[in-house]
Amino acid sequence: MRVAVIQQSNSADLEANQQKSEKLIREAASQGAELVLLQELHRGLYFCQTEDTDVFDQAETIPGPSSERFGKLAKELAIVLVTSLFEKRAAGLYHNTSVVLEKDGSIAGQYRKMHIPDDPGFYEKFFFTPGDAERLDGENGFTPIDTSVGRLGVLVCWDQWYPEAARLMALAGAELLLYPTAIGWDPADDEDEKQRQLNAWITIQRAHGVANGLPVLVANRTGFEASPTGEGGIQFWGNSFVAGPQGEILGQTGVDGDQVLLIDIDMARTERVRRIWPYLRDRRIDAYADLTKRFRR
Amino acid sequence: MRVAVIQQSNSADLEANQQKSEKLIREAASQGAELVLLQELHRGLYFCQTEDTDVFDQAETIPGPSSERFGKLAKELAIVLVTSLFEKRAAGLYHNTSVVLEKDGSIAGQYRKMHIPDDPGFYEKFFFTPGDAERLDGENGFTPIDTSVGRLGVLVCWDQWYPEAARLMALAGAELLLYPTAIGWDPADDEDEKQRQLNAWITIQRAHGVANGLPVLVANRTGFEASPTGEGGIQFWGNSFVAGPQGEILGQTGVDGDQVLLIDIDMARTERVRRIWPYLRDRRIDAYADLTKRFRR
Repeated sequence: MRVAVIQQSNSADLEANQQKSEKLIREAASQGAELVLLQELHRGLYFCQTEDTDVFDQAETIPGPSSERFGKLAKELAIVLVTSLFEKRAAGLYHNTSVVLEKDGSIAGQYRKMHIPDDPGFYEKFFFTPGDAERLDGENGFTPIDTSVGRLGVLVCWDQWYPEAARLMALAGAELLLYPTAIGWDPADDEDEKQRQLNAWITIQRAHGVANGLPVLVANRTGFEASPTGEGGIQFWGNSFVAGPQGEILGQTGVDGDQVLLIDIDMARTERVRRIWPYLRDRRIDAYADLTKRFRR
Repeated sequence: MRVAVIQQSNSADLEANQQKSEKLIREAASQGAELVLLQELHRGLYFCQTEDTDVFDQAETIPGPSSERFGKLAKELAIVLVTSLFEKRAAGLYHNTSVVLEKDGSIAGQYRKMHIPDDPGFYEKFFFTPGDAERLDGENGFTPIDTSVGRLGVLVCWDQWYPEAARLMALAGAELLLYPTAIGWDPADDEDEKQRQLNAWITIQRAHGVANGLPVLVANRTGFEASPTGEGGIQFWGNSFVAGPQGEILGQTGVDGDQVLLIDIDMARTERVRRIWPYLRDRRIDAYADLTKRFRR
């Protein structure tokens, strides 16, 4: 199966950003991609650098403008499209939500980001309520989305630091792990620290592939976005990539530039890799109960 | 704190292997190491390439010959020494056990390998009973060992593929993760597959450091050991390493050669890294219950 990961820089012009996404999606589809992954919150700037209440105006319902617009495009191109939206669920209740659109334009499913970060320049806890532990349909918040190209373990950004999230998706039969992301450097950090951060981010996501015998798709933002405070900003580090079920890098973009990363994934390899690396066989579920504790002391 | 990881090739001569270990341990201590990690089952050949009942003669009790011999050495050199033994607990009941020896020569604690592999050439399920989920002292099998140089999250080889094991150690306050290991290549695999395997192994252990903000010490065996069947064998791939709490490689050996890897670890960095990468803060323990399931479908 041919997949595409799309990396782009954004501006404050939501319409221009969406037109750019559409152009890149069309390019991916024209080259045979059946599954296309967009980056986190691809409609606008990464707005969590400050806590500004006006930003809530950008939120939308699901279904809503984005799911309709990109659903129409998915149907036209006959692709499965993984989008990332700022969802308004109710007044005062917002989520960071990935919506997966089917080849017929319908909504295949959605995933509400379960782990919400909060650190200087990434004030997400102000904006996003974590996804429900148990959803209204009775499913766990970590539930993959069934599509015509497979069962997708869609997670979002900060989730990528949690082996628990990837494992729960794998245990529910996910065939791919997908991470729409918006992560970058604080320009004030030195070069060594920047490299450690980038490498840690690549390493842990490749490891989710290894631990679960699954391919991993990661779409990250690129470009510099100045902080609305006028001081500093975030240099999004790009480096979107696709890894195979042994964590091997199948393709990777650079730091800069709008890019379409096209990769052919052999979906039968998970079966072959898991036969010789059968980690699921030996999990000590009789000794894992403390994983649901905050701390063991 | 200065730590040392020791990598060595072994022969069928148990006494010669132990003398070599002692020489390397003395070298590490003479250069200031306070904590020394040996590889998995360092007393002999990796005997799990076939299922031979005579091998059980090599097993020993704890306390027993190895814990006394290496305890005496730990006391003489005033180091904390992490060993790996074939333990006879009772007739017909054997474990793959790491024994940690204190600076005064006493046994600080032991860890019985919880995840036991079994694949061609690594028939460990024939020899080793998995460690108790709940030990006789009431502690969980994944419990770190308190020593004068810190709380050690000692795990063994196959455990290294399980994020759950590293997480449980971190949640119990482990300050370091340590993996005595015996892993290598099947010479029949092609070069690409060999590189994928080695890189997967390095990647997932670095990721345990990232996910938990902890340094990671890995001691692996080196050298070729022919199969007792006369066909094939294992080329142990060495590449012992130490990584920091962002998964950054602090030092790494090569494939071949008996080696002492000496690394200075800044034990205060875990605190600094966890302040800015506070993964423990955001774990969704309300949604993790299914981690104790074999599969979710």
